[in-house]
Amino acid sequence: MDKPSVAFQGEVGAYSELAVLEYFGQDISAIPCHTFEEVFVAVSQEDNRRGLIPIENSLAGSIHHNYDLMLHYSLHIVGEHYLRVSHCLLALPGVKLEDIRYVRSHPQALSQCEANLKRLGVELVAEADTAGSARMVRERNEPHTAALASRRAAQVNNLQILAENMEDNPANFTRFLILANQPHQVSDPQSGDYKTSVVFSLKNHPGSLFKALSVFALRDIDLTKIESRPIQGKPWEYLFYIDFAGHVNQTTCGRALEHLQELAPFIRILGSYPRHRMDPTDG
Amino acid sequence: MDKPSVAFQGEVGAYSELAVLEYFGQDISAIPCHTFEEVFVAVSQEDNRRGLIPIENSLAGSIHHNYDLMLHYSLHIVGEHYLRVSHCLLALPGVKLEDIRYVRSHPQALSQCEANLKRLGVELVAEADTAGSARMVRERNEPHTAALASRRAAQVNNLQILAENMEDNPANFTRFLILANQPHQVSDPQSGDYKTSVVFSLKNHPGSLFKALSVFALRDIDLTKIESRPIQGKPWEYLFYIDFAGHVNQTTCGRALEHLQELAPFIRILGSYPRHRMDPTDG
Repeated sequence: MDKPSVAFQGEVGAYSELAVLEYFGQDISAIPCHTFEEVFVAVSQEDNRRGLIPIENSLAGSIHHNYDLMLHYSLHIVGEHYLRVSHCLLALPGVKLEDIRYVRSHPQALSQCEANLKRLGVELVAEADTAGSARMVRERNEPHTAALASRRAAQVNNLQILAENMEDNPANFTRFLILANQPHQVSDPQSGDYKTSVVFSLKNHPGSLFKALSVFALRDIDLTKIESRPIQGKPWEYLFYIDFAGHVNQTTCGRALEHLQELAPFIRILGSYPRHRMDPTDG
Repeated sequence: MDKPSVAFQGEVGAYSELAVLEYFGQDISAIPCHTFEEVFVAVSQEDNRRGLIPIENSLAGSIHHNYDLMLHYSLHIVGEHYLRVSHCLLALPGVKLEDIRYVRSHPQALSQCEANLKRLGVELVAEADTAGSARMVRERNEPHTAALASRRAAQVNNLQILAENMEDNPANFTRFLILANQPHQVSDPQSGDYKTSVVFSLKNHPGSLFKALSVFALRDIDLTKIESRPIQGKPWEYLFYIDFAGHVNQTTCGRALEHLQELAPFIRILGSYPRHRMDPTDG
């Protein structure tokens, strides 16, 4: 039998691929895609394929574009994974830290390591992505250039790690969602630890959000995320992204969502899935 | 008398500088800063200086890092401005669209124009920022390369605009905040159209957010933004970013905030400021 396949955005060595490996283990075939939309297409085409996309970062915030793609494609969230983003300084084997004069990486990674890079007194070179920067250092055989990328990118490109945890703020986590064609199934939803993600719109009048949240509060359902987003072109309407503790197959959660449907002109349940509990000492 | 000065992140021709010009007009001195933190420092140092920072984009989401800086520095939000982000294709004068083989820009701009750029069949070159890409095309005198940047970057670098509105999704807006050392003052807060931004934390137990929002709902105060953010290292606590319609100097809003203080272990009022009403037909 073929290995199960998982689509992700980026190239081998990207943080998304690292998240794929952490979540699924080694026994899968990881499929690199150029864009997030290609990930959605790749999953839609193959019934057993999974996709993994970043949805929010502790420093950069939510990625609205990926919420848009979720509304456009009919996939289901079947899991989540929090990845600790640790930027490493990668160079050719034998190169020493004092040899480094240039550092290549994605602008966001460079800016997250700004203070630490300043101390090294190196020149920063912006590239399209972190893993691609590591590949360039290897392909061009650059003795005075390091890439700022994942530990995995060192392994893939046969580079050595000159320094780890280059980020100025260690509280750097990215939350990934796992996508599939079919919803997550459980035999006994009462016993596990689940989250459900839902998107809905509300007419903007005072108290409309308060009423919408009452469907959860009155049932003692715990919210784990809430975010509003103005709908462009409809200045008085908002989309809300909400995650709550529980599974749609649990009676209370199902009732809350039925109740929410009475209040929301638009609602889409993105999926129920096992919750990823991060080790609190990670933070 | 010296012109009033406004600090922004980026170089001349950046979208932030365009927002400075749209909001303040031409009669100011715009101060380019390398980082967002430098903007905060520049404003803190000069009593009459203003700062302008992006806080959220309709496609990319909120910029949590800038909320962090607002909590770190004691500045006040005194205004907001929505900028329609329109990416233009800029080239040396005389160059035609069919001459272009490479397009330089920030990776986020390149990805926002992906479908339109694909149609042109050009090679994409990732750079640190949009305005810097325009400067490179000019400084290196590149006849086969265009930059993807603002209309303003064309003017600043003496480039021509080969194409406008290159973005695949026209609903591309960035919201900027205006920062100052002193809070926004009004003689009659009852009469104007204001927003107030507040950050607070809540212990994560079912219904705590619902109770917090009741302080606004029970007083018919309209929320315009809500966003939760997990506090790293404190897995059961959240920060909430809320904007609501009204001014802290209005009795009802003042009472609501006093009420919120009873419920929130931490609260910080970031500022009250005149609301920027976008033209609905823009969206």
